[in-house]
Amino acid sequence: MAFSTHNRGGRRRTLILASAALLTAASISIPAAAFADVSDNGGATRNDGDKSAALRASIVDGPAKNVILLIGDGMGDSEITVARNYEYGAAGELPGIDALPLTGQYTTYSVYRDGANKGKPDYVPDSAATGSAWSTGTKTFDNAISVDIDGNPQDTLIEIAKANGLKTGNVSTAEIQDATPAVEVAHVDARSCYGPDSATCGDDALAAGGLGSISEQLLDTRADLTLGGGSTSFGQTAKAGEWNGETLFAQAEDRGYQLIDDAAGLAGVTTADQTSPVLGLFTPGNFPTRYAATTATVGGADGAPVTCQPNPDRLGTDLSLKSLTSKAISLLDTDDNGDKGFFLQVEGASIDKQDHAANACGQIGETIDLDEAVQAALEFAKTDGNTLVIVTADHAHTSQIVDSTPPAGLSTALTTADGTVMKVAYGTAAAGGSQQHTGSQLRIAAYGPGGAQVVGLTDQTDNFFTMASALELNRDTASLSSGATASLSSTTVEPGAELTVSASGFQGDRQLAAVVASTPTDLGSRDVIDGTADYTFAAPTEPGVHTVTLTGRQSAKAVVVEFTVAAAGGPATPPTTPGGAAGDGSGASGSGTASASGVLGNTGAVVAPFLVFGGLLLAAGVVLVLQRRRRHA
Amino acid sequence: MAFSTHNRGGRRRTLILASAALLTAASISIPAAAFADVSDNGGATRNDGDKSAALRASIVDGPAKNVILLIGDGMGDSEITVARNYEYGAAGELPGIDALPLTGQYTTYSVYRDGANKGKPDYVPDSAATGSAWSTGTKTFDNAISVDIDGNPQDTLIEIAKANGLKTGNVSTAEIQDATPAVEVAHVDARSCYGPDSATCGDDALAAGGLGSISEQLLDTRADLTLGGGSTSFGQTAKAGEWNGETLFAQAEDRGYQLIDDAAGLAGVTTADQTSPVLGLFTPGNFPTRYAATTATVGGADGAPVTCQPNPDRLGTDLSLKSLTSKAISLLDTDDNGDKGFFLQVEGASIDKQDHAANACGQIGETIDLDEAVQAALEFAKTDGNTLVIVTADHAHTSQIVDSTPPAGLSTALTTADGTVMKVAYGTAAAGGSQQHTGSQLRIAAYGPGGAQVVGLTDQTDNFFTMASALELNRDTASLSSGATASLSSTTVEPGAELTVSASGFQGDRQLAAVVASTPTDLGSRDVIDGTADYTFAAPTEPGVHTVTLTGRQSAKAVVVEFTVAAAGGPATPPTTPGGAAGDGSGASGSGTASASGVLGNTGAVVAPFLVFGGLLLAAGVVLVLQRRRRHA
Repeated sequence: MAFSTHNRGGRRRTLILASAALLTAASISIPAAAFADVSDNGGATRNDGDKSAALRASIVDGPAKNVILLIGDGMGDSEITVARNYEYGAAGELPGIDALPLTGQYTTYSVYRDGANKGKPDYVPDSAATGSAWSTGTKTFDNAISVDIDGNPQDTLIEIAKANGLKTGNVSTAEIQDATPAVEVAHVDARSCYGPDSATCGDDALAAGGLGSISEQLLDTRADLTLGGGSTSFGQTAKAGEWNGETLFAQAEDRGYQLIDDAAGLAGVTTADQTSPVLGLFTPGNFPTRYAATTATVGGADGAPVTCQPNPDRLGTDLSLKSLTSKAISLLDTDDNGDKGFFLQVEGASIDKQDHAANACGQIGETIDLDEAVQAALEFAKTDGNTLVIVTADHAHTSQIVDSTPPAGLSTALTTADGTVMKVAYGTAAAGGSQQHTGSQLRIAAYGPGGAQVVGLTDQTDNFFTMASALELNRDTASLSSGATASLSSTTVEPGAELTVSASGFQGDRQLAAVVASTPTDLGSRDVIDGTADYTFAAPTEPGVHTVTLTGRQSAKAVVVEFTVAAAGGPATPPTTPGGAAGDGSGASGSGTASASGVLGNTGAVVAPFLVFGGLLLAAGVVLVLQRRRRHA
Repeated sequence: MAFSTHNRGGRRRTLILASAALLTAASISIPAAAFADVSDNGGATRNDGDKSAALRASIVDGPAKNVILLIGDGMGDSEITVARNYEYGAAGELPGIDALPLTGQYTTYSVYRDGANKGKPDYVPDSAATGSAWSTGTKTFDNAISVDIDGNPQDTLIEIAKANGLKTGNVSTAEIQDATPAVEVAHVDARSCYGPDSATCGDDALAAGGLGSISEQLLDTRADLTLGGGSTSFGQTAKAGEWNGETLFAQAEDRGYQLIDDAAGLAGVTTADQTSPVLGLFTPGNFPTRYAATTATVGGADGAPVTCQPNPDRLGTDLSLKSLTSKAISLLDTDDNGDKGFFLQVEGASIDKQDHAANACGQIGETIDLDEAVQAALEFAKTDGNTLVIVTADHAHTSQIVDSTPPAGLSTALTTADGTVMKVAYGTAAAGGSQQHTGSQLRIAAYGPGGAQVVGLTDQTDNFFTMASALELNRDTASLSSGATASLSSTTVEPGAELTVSASGFQGDRQLAAVVASTPTDLGSRDVIDGTADYTFAAPTEPGVHTVTLTGRQSAKAVVVEFTVAAAGGPATPPTTPGGAAGDGSGASGSGTASASGVLGNTGAVVAPFLVFGGLLLAAGVVLVLQRRRRHA
């Protein structure tokens, strides 16, 4: 007698079902083996019944308070299937990745930078261009970190979320300077511009008047929390700017970062905020993988099938991607930012790297690690009820599940959870070479408010707008500094006396520059903490009215305050505040209008930003996106 | 000044947008070139705005009146992307395939038939196993056409839909005996069992007591409409059964089929029903492809990029897949079946075949052909408002879009609609070999009532239940014959006189067998037309009470009617009808109970069906599926 049952999750589920049956139906003596053979009619189905109601329920209107974006680097549909087959069996389910209710496909192409093809599609993108696409909404060229094809920086989700008062986090199993984490915090033309010593930084280097290397810009961007590998670059020494001659670690400490390099340190962290952001770098380079490497060879899949082995070099599970994700969520899900929520990006980086290396076990383990992180994110989101979780990849990759061993390409055979053999082929590069990314559209999946945006066919750049819209971010970050003001500790001081100017309302900025015009004196750069920054400086010695101009480095918003230098007992001239509010009893405050030039970065370099807004109402009802461009010298 | 706009459809849309702008905004002199560059911020997005409402609206509860299933054979996400990039550009949109609002991924593995791995997943399936999965809901082994791993026939969607009174159609660009169309109409162990001459039929051959070759079973299944290639097999001669010695074409004609072999013939068809089903076979084998072949070579993508050329051998567009689909819909969308709706399967077969051949242009053209068919289906469904359209593939395939020319595998470079070069690689077989299917999960997409079932992760077998549920099909087709009755032209006849028995209510059957028990005389097989069939035969010469037993070949439902043979002027004995209704004035009617043995097929072979039902209520709330198994000798 044969029974058939709707079966979800294959091998593992079978055991669960059988156990449940034995517990509750022991009296009718149904043998466990009678359940859920995938070869029974209906035995392999995954749907339990009509999904319409469940799907409707999964469509939750935004806004979302929080967004967690989880990226499997190089995790195409083939890579997902490889990992599922191996770890849970073909009828099984990746408990995180497969559990998201809203699914679609998106295109990932990049665009050419130069020549006749400038701006035209490049069908096989790299992680820099693809990451820039979802981080900024702008398609760009391979190698580019959140700059457009002309090299103009494009605001990133972490930058925008932070300007809007959200907490922000960036987690990766790669070097934190690697493309995927870098796209959230830096703007460089060459993704390999990791640190001050990188030869590829070109005019992005601080010394060349640029915004600096990825590591230096990471410190400027000042996410509340950054966890990953890549400590090597932070041991390098700045070649220009305010921390010229100091290591980036020293600079980070000077700027208030909590520096962490091990699990115990991470366990001790209780807050991650703008005053004391967390920078946890646990390896010099990329994290070691979960599973030990297997090496695909020509004809390899005809050899004895492999069972993946633990990698003895793997970090402790308290530093697994899941643990880092859980820790990040717990640190970002606080109401110390006025309960404004958070944006967190999490990357499982080495699916890609091990696919490049034709290392099936490596690639599988990293997918499983990401899946566990997705489980942690979903668990939080389900409890929270107000979090959008998106799981996708940046680009497709080489690995393919094949029936017979390809004659020329590399391959490996694996014994899966099903107890059968899966052959994985890598056919886009020779042995020892780097297997290529591929240009296929990809799965994107979502859970939570605003997640409906991923269903159907979208582009990778849509994902930026999906997340920004779900969080109701004001993308015109400059406008977030429009109400900036400043006040002085005193409006009249003796020559050379100490004076403090306190700026506030610079939410659209990450750094402030200040200049005393009369001398002139460059007061240098300050990190903007929750919209505020202070300068304490010696007043000029020359009596009379002086001004301090405070300028948001990102917004170009300038605020001018006046003070009077007068010898002790001399006449005090009341300060005038151009366009500003009246000073209070103890000081003066001012507000100004955006300046179109001369904003100083923390490098001392001149940044010439200007804002371009345009609008046109099309008959087609097309929504215009206001674009802001900043060009640096 | 730079403008950026949400852009859907890339190259082609750009022109539309520009035109719209020029029409409506000419006075503000915006140059067309300022619009919709994919490299602008937001310029590559596909979403127009918040999709939540649109997605909710696209979730329509079943039932659906009609289902149209369109299969791109071998059309993985990579093949979709290759075709989109080539024909519409990377930012473009396949107007049919990409337009479906509900999307998900599904798994396609098959299962092993034999040995220690029997019933376990086989990660790279063929088109026979995958087609059987959606056609029957049962996972099976590679090579199997709608039989389970033990060789038991599994009811197909066309069979079940027909039994439920729906009209049915089967369209393919392949030989109609090819796996994908075959899975809807036949049950054989070896997919190559095309016709009576096929050496691989084994015990499926009529002569061996089986159900017959795919072509012969196609005639038995009697879909209202069948369009495709593969006329060669119908020129073969039956080796056993009622049409022994006749060609299948002659048999088809004898059984009432409208035989069509060209566009003019098809144009002349005005009805397709059970009385006169349409069998249109337009080529001896597979249809020629849309585009002429390109041959990938080792290093080929380093050569001059190719622009695909029309194939001079292609059939006229009045026989394109789109034309066939439109014609099929117009013939099936009638109310001559009590407005019960239809089920139509459409296959674009040669995406797979040209991928096997490493023929990029061939593969692309077939994807575009399918896309046009999808457009036709969607157009109908949108007007009709009560049709579920599902577009998916059977399995993934080899072709990959790569950045650089792989050193060992085959590749081709193409100049796309973007004017840039796309390199397509085929790395799973050597030159001249057959490139392999791959085991990746696939896109499935839907529009219309019940379409929500495809969102998220499902299995290919789910698709069977998605369609059967949307159509509210009673899958217990035997029960559809439970009310069958039969009546006689006369209850008392002279010895040897002509007598007609008319059966009705055999909706669950496709053929009827009849036996006069006393002689005994096998009255042979009749096609059941809308539940009815007639036999006219000579009464026995021996006086007394005789019975005719009519048995549904598929349901095993038996109806027994009695009649009396009496010499002219002799005494008439009133007939008794076992379990039956009383006879009317002119004849007798009877109904009986299902017999568990001795059902005659049209082959004269004994089919021994029995039904196994089982049920168990699990604590876990698992829904049990009742399974019906039929075993043939």
